[in-house]
Amino acid sequence: MSIKSSIVDIHTHVYPPSYINLLKARKSIPYIISVPDSESLRLVILPAEDTESTSRGRPVGAEYYDTNEKIKFMDLHSIDISVISLANPWLDWATPEEAGQAAKDINDEVDAECGKFPGRLFAFATLPLSGGKEVVVKEIQRLKELKYMRGIVLGTTGLGKGLDDPELLPIFETLQEAKLPIFLHPHYGLPSSVWGERSNDYGHVLPLALGFPMETTIAVTRMILASVFEKVPDLEMILAHSGGTLPFLAGRIESCIEHDGHLKAEGKLGNGRKTVRDILKKNIFLDAVIYGDVGLKAAIQASGEDRVLFGTDHPFFPPLVEDGGKWASVETNYEGIKGALGSHTDGAEAALGGNAVRILNLNV
Amino acid sequence: MSIKSSIVDIHTHVYPPSYINLLKARKSIPYIISVPDSESLRLVILPAEDTESTSRGRPVGAEYYDTNEKIKFMDLHSIDISVISLANPWLDWATPEEAGQAAKDINDEVDAECGKFPGRLFAFATLPLSGGKEVVVKEIQRLKELKYMRGIVLGTTGLGKGLDDPELLPIFETLQEAKLPIFLHPHYGLPSSVWGERSNDYGHVLPLALGFPMETTIAVTRMILASVFEKVPDLEMILAHSGGTLPFLAGRIESCIEHDGHLKAEGKLGNGRKTVRDILKKNIFLDAVIYGDVGLKAAIQASGEDRVLFGTDHPFFPPLVEDGGKWASVETNYEGIKGALGSHTDGAEAALGGNAVRILNLNV
Repeated sequence: MSIKSSIVDIHTHVYPPSYINLLKARKSIPYIISVPDSESLRLVILPAEDTESTSRGRPVGAEYYDTNEKIKFMDLHSIDISVISLANPWLDWATPEEAGQAAKDINDEVDAECGKFPGRLFAFATLPLSGGKEVVVKEIQRLKELKYMRGIVLGTTGLGKGLDDPELLPIFETLQEAKLPIFLHPHYGLPSSVWGERSNDYGHVLPLALGFPMETTIAVTRMILASVFEKVPDLEMILAHSGGTLPFLAGRIESCIEHDGHLKAEGKLGNGRKTVRDILKKNIFLDAVIYGDVGLKAAIQASGEDRVLFGTDHPFFPPLVEDGGKWASVETNYEGIKGALGSHTDGAEAALGGNAVRILNLNV
Repeated sequence: MSIKSSIVDIHTHVYPPSYINLLKARKSIPYIISVPDSESLRLVILPAEDTESTSRGRPVGAEYYDTNEKIKFMDLHSIDISVISLANPWLDWATPEEAGQAAKDINDEVDAECGKFPGRLFAFATLPLSGGKEVVVKEIQRLKELKYMRGIVLGTTGLGKGLDDPELLPIFETLQEAKLPIFLHPHYGLPSSVWGERSNDYGHVLPLALGFPMETTIAVTRMILASVFEKVPDLEMILAHSGGTLPFLAGRIESCIEHDGHLKAEGKLGNGRKTVRDILKKNIFLDAVIYGDVGLKAAIQASGEDRVLFGTDHPFFPPLVEDGGKWASVETNYEGIKGALGSHTDGAEAALGGNAVRILNLNV
């Protein structure tokens, strides 16, 4: 199997045992509860899931914490390499005292898990954000000791004030120096008021289908408006879900910036400003987790055929009726690449794995 | 000039004098204030604009209420026909008692203004939503007496509970029977908490560039989840700003629906359900106000080359330095069509006007 034709999944999650244990010890969200009279565990990560019933949250099976299950899933779907990341909500909830050690434990454990399957597993590391920026910078610098780490996974809250917080700049600079891209992933969605009073009738569709990508879009746009990409010019970000909605809205964002009287009065529209398009083609990569060729084509046109990366979002979105066969959610993303780039074309092979191998240095 | 080559602007707003007078009489948003010691008026429609200073809101010049200015703008930009609509926030704020008469006055006045420029101006009517559904249905039925009305403009609140409110079904059915499409337009955006504590540094970019299109996307997705397009199968909607983000997110929304355990348990995933793609190709039209070819291509691929419609958003997004020349915001939308569909192609001519003439029956 040539590297060119490797299939790489860059959007695939784990809750390693050390993280599961942290959540089991907690008494409020995010936490893991035991189902009475059974060995089942359930994960509750969102306020809306935290109801007084044993059916709250979602079941946590071995596919969440056992890398053997990850490899089985990869084999089933012809995936050669996975770049695994802790799933949301990461360590956003950790106390300042525990964050540093927790991140260290998780990163060491995930790196060791990757080492069990050399060449098949790599990872994005977890940052101890609640520990403060010095602790975060120290952990980033430590990551070079870990053989399989290829970037870091990040939510949208940063140190608590969002990703346009100037306090984050030393962290972004450290990531730039270490050449570690950020895999940006949503968790919090939008305030529930926007879904309306009938939203319970719609299952989890509105927060998952709309809240997640809108959260990502808002977070990156705030970074753009805070001039993060001028201040940290080589910062690299891989955006989950093909950038949320950024490829589609890039033209509107740029037009609104160019027509904003306040930004003009503040002298922010002058030379040296990177346009949204500049940033999409220089600092941003997009996963291909968009479930269709229409969105994926827009992602490719916005960012570049050499900047999109196949992903699955495993273990989320399993088939509603499990029969051991391939997952529709994964097949839909394969079909999206085929629809946008053709079968067995250079572009399709790049999106399926070649780009990830190059960008994340997965040659071993 | 053949009909085929007409250029039609379907996203262009007015505040007719009767509406201006209503806002002048108000003492809280939305309202119009006079600037002391001058003849200037300022429009304040959003809470964030309503500060204790004469610079609050935005100036309301003749381009907001004088159709002669609309015609001048059209001539400057080679626009043959405009389909004008009352700008947000319409009559959302009207008392139940005043709504019916206010809508009647506005619709009569706008129709009369169109009659001053036969063949160049048509309009979307305003509904007296706060008057309740009987008053609304009556006004819709009255619209056939008005020569230039070709649909209705609608915000996302409906009767106060959003567009997935079952109380709206008789209104949607009346629109279906009258063959009047809805021009859906945002106003409220998202709760300000999502923009973060530095958002004032960014002018109006976040609520305008992101809040508006996200509001539209949420509103239509709620309609889809409430099965409105199965219940009112020939309902037609023209979505502002190329559908917000719907074309880009359609695949994700569809995948989230198909993977939702609650919807499955409720029997909502069975036969008879229209997919998001079905709805985009059957019930939905998209304006081309997306400021770039990447977004427009996605809109075209999602909905169809015969379903996109040029627009300008006049009188909003004027040049920051007015020199009497063409507006960059308009030229960017022209360029987007050229980039997505080529120059002088059948597709480009359709998007620029042919589709609007056919869909809105603008032959006179």
